[in-house]
Amino acid sequence: MDKWSWIEGGIAAPRGFRATGVKAEVKYPDKYDVALVYSEVPAQAVGVFTRNKVKAHPLILTKKHLQNGIAQAMVANSGNANACVGKPGDEAAWAMAVKTAEVLGIAPEDVLVASTGVIGVELPVESVTRGIEKASLEIAEKISPEEMTQNSHQAALAIMTTDTAVKEAACELSTEHGVIRLGAMAKGSGMIHPNMGTMLGFITTDAAIPAAELQELLREAVEDSFNMVTVDGDTSTNDMVLVLANGKSGITLNPEEWAEFRRMFWAVCQKLAQDIARDGEGATKFLEVQVLGAAAVEDARKIAKSICGSSLVKTALYGEDANWGRILAAAGYSGAEFIPDQVEIYLGHVLVAKEGQGVHFSEVEAKEVLSKKDVLIKLLLQEGQAQATAWGCDLTHDYVTINGDYRT
Amino acid sequence: MDKWSWIEGGIAAPRGFRATGVKAEVKYPDKYDVALVYSEVPAQAVGVFTRNKVKAHPLILTKKHLQNGIAQAMVANSGNANACVGKPGDEAAWAMAVKTAEVLGIAPEDVLVASTGVIGVELPVESVTRGIEKASLEIAEKISPEEMTQNSHQAALAIMTTDTAVKEAACELSTEHGVIRLGAMAKGSGMIHPNMGTMLGFITTDAAIPAAELQELLREAVEDSFNMVTVDGDTSTNDMVLVLANGKSGITLNPEEWAEFRRMFWAVCQKLAQDIARDGEGATKFLEVQVLGAAAVEDARKIAKSICGSSLVKTALYGEDANWGRILAAAGYSGAEFIPDQVEIYLGHVLVAKEGQGVHFSEVEAKEVLSKKDVLIKLLLQEGQAQATAWGCDLTHDYVTINGDYRT
Repeated sequence: MDKWSWIEGGIAAPRGFRATGVKAEVKYPDKYDVALVYSEVPAQAVGVFTRNKVKAHPLILTKKHLQNGIAQAMVANSGNANACVGKPGDEAAWAMAVKTAEVLGIAPEDVLVASTGVIGVELPVESVTRGIEKASLEIAEKISPEEMTQNSHQAALAIMTTDTAVKEAACELSTEHGVIRLGAMAKGSGMIHPNMGTMLGFITTDAAIPAAELQELLREAVEDSFNMVTVDGDTSTNDMVLVLANGKSGITLNPEEWAEFRRMFWAVCQKLAQDIARDGEGATKFLEVQVLGAAAVEDARKIAKSICGSSLVKTALYGEDANWGRILAAAGYSGAEFIPDQVEIYLGHVLVAKEGQGVHFSEVEAKEVLSKKDVLIKLLLQEGQAQATAWGCDLTHDYVTINGDYRT
Repeated sequence: MDKWSWIEGGIAAPRGFRATGVKAEVKYPDKYDVALVYSEVPAQAVGVFTRNKVKAHPLILTKKHLQNGIAQAMVANSGNANACVGKPGDEAAWAMAVKTAEVLGIAPEDVLVASTGVIGVELPVESVTRGIEKASLEIAEKISPEEMTQNSHQAALAIMTTDTAVKEAACELSTEHGVIRLGAMAKGSGMIHPNMGTMLGFITTDAAIPAAELQELLREAVEDSFNMVTVDGDTSTNDMVLVLANGKSGITLNPEEWAEFRRMFWAVCQKLAQDIARDGEGATKFLEVQVLGAAAVEDARKIAKSICGSSLVKTALYGEDANWGRILAAAGYSGAEFIPDQVEIYLGHVLVAKEGQGVHFSEVEAKEVLSKKDVLIKLLLQEGQAQATAWGCDLTHDYVTINGDYRT
């Protein structure tokens, strides 16, 4: 039985955090597009970043600001990625940090900056900094818990681009000396792929965790959550997941509680990762691929991600076509080691292939599985004990429509 | 000035070859679906094969039959991939070789077998062997060159699946002692990707070339042609390119002529590769990506293929959107080494990015480039002398429609 549970409150649920989102007209007149998250005290701060060789300007600044493992605020805008625009881009990211520091009365070096949206267009700095001012006023107000929850929600809205659903979570863990809370929000729907496809993730906690341990926790959790999501195989210039741990709970976790905390942290990352897959651009179906019985976890991961990322599997899913051959073929080119002649494939509960070849199965039953909104594909490799799960979605006409004319 | 030129005649253009395609009802009642290529004398024979870990049954047999470097016939069917069906699949491939050998009066071990189509469904062996018999009768007839050309064309038709255009070529090289001819046909439109996406290629020549040299030539040419095509990133279980060189020209090439022959061979592979990209499932546009000034050819290849394969670049192309940020981002996650801040990007003749960032360009001119059927994207890395070119197509609504319901 888990000692933790989901709660309301979003990113600002943990003690000592405030957050809000405002409309600053970065790109669209009536969209929340600047988010601000503030910790009343300096927090232990860590992040993981895109492996794309082309890195957006705020990402470079944020990495620098994380070097001492301490930060006190996170600011993000949607509508513009502030990427690939040269010197003005570095200046714009710095301007966001400076303005945030000014309005909150902290050091610019303690501000982490993120952006998401179109690449290669200069950030409208004026709009964003006006938004930061507006947000700081909202954060300064004394408000009810309900209003706090609403403000967190606005922050989550403000980081969305082509997302169609808000992605936020909060939970709390009961410990010997009281509760510890975790809050989170994320965005991502297109350009999602292993190794941090375009997604932003922000996590807060009032636990007291040294930056080094926090970094390790984040790295491991991301590997099994955000990095197991694939929407279209494109990884972006702007991805990052940031964590602030401000210690305001006043609680030091004992080893058992730390293990519980880790599980909770993991669950939050996986929930957000799944929310992102579910919200894949144009998606009508959510796909979970489980690979079991692998010789090594790396092989299981490669196969799961390869299947989730295959355009042919994704279109077959959209067409509700029990085309297990494409599933096996995607496993085959994943680069993973496995014995094709041993593989069993299930669509939901329906066994469709065994010993690497098709079996007679009920097309009606298979169709029923595929007609659901959530579809599970399971591969049993029968080689070892390692396993991995990846999440994705179908490839639809709407994906093409959405991405055929995004920039203009 | 090239010493070689394109000619008519397709796969059977070289001396001593015969070919045809027949309708055998493998899957559809009125489609050419069994192709037979026959050399009057045993030929030097080589092949390259899919790197997918899951290999179709005919592929395993053909590899075995190539071990001695000699073959005399190639037989192929469309409509069924004969993949992932277990022992019956091995038996079916062998039955195709045996029947071909029987009707041609050669050894089964000198027959190369290929299949393409749906995975995981047992091959209707009866239909295919009936087709082989029918084809052998057509091949035995004495016919005019025009009829020969028509028969070659039917062979090329018989290997098509979702292809919308026939892919064949023939050319001849003038040498001191007469002409040497080359014939070829290919299929491929979906599941096309570097490392031999689902495609079949068949090449014939009446030049006398030892198998070892032929193998080296094929390996190198494929690297710069078929392996530089990407349609959807999926690689298949069935891909192969086979070459028969029967020496019937009676000509031994001197070193200069060998160099010319290599260029001709290369050109044929590149033409077929481009035809495949152009015929990408649902494609409305042909994309060529040139990467110039790379430090190493491997980096240039990675970047060119990554851009050609990016779903976001491909949908932007479909939408005629000059979204150079996606191009740079795709280069960034290609795994290649390069300096983003030095990159220049051209859409056709229009410079859209310089030093890794956007420049002011005429949207009208860019739109004009993108509205064409053939679009060129050029990246200048300004690091060295290496270069590579990849070919692909746009990602369209029709791609989703075609692949949403292929199996049923």
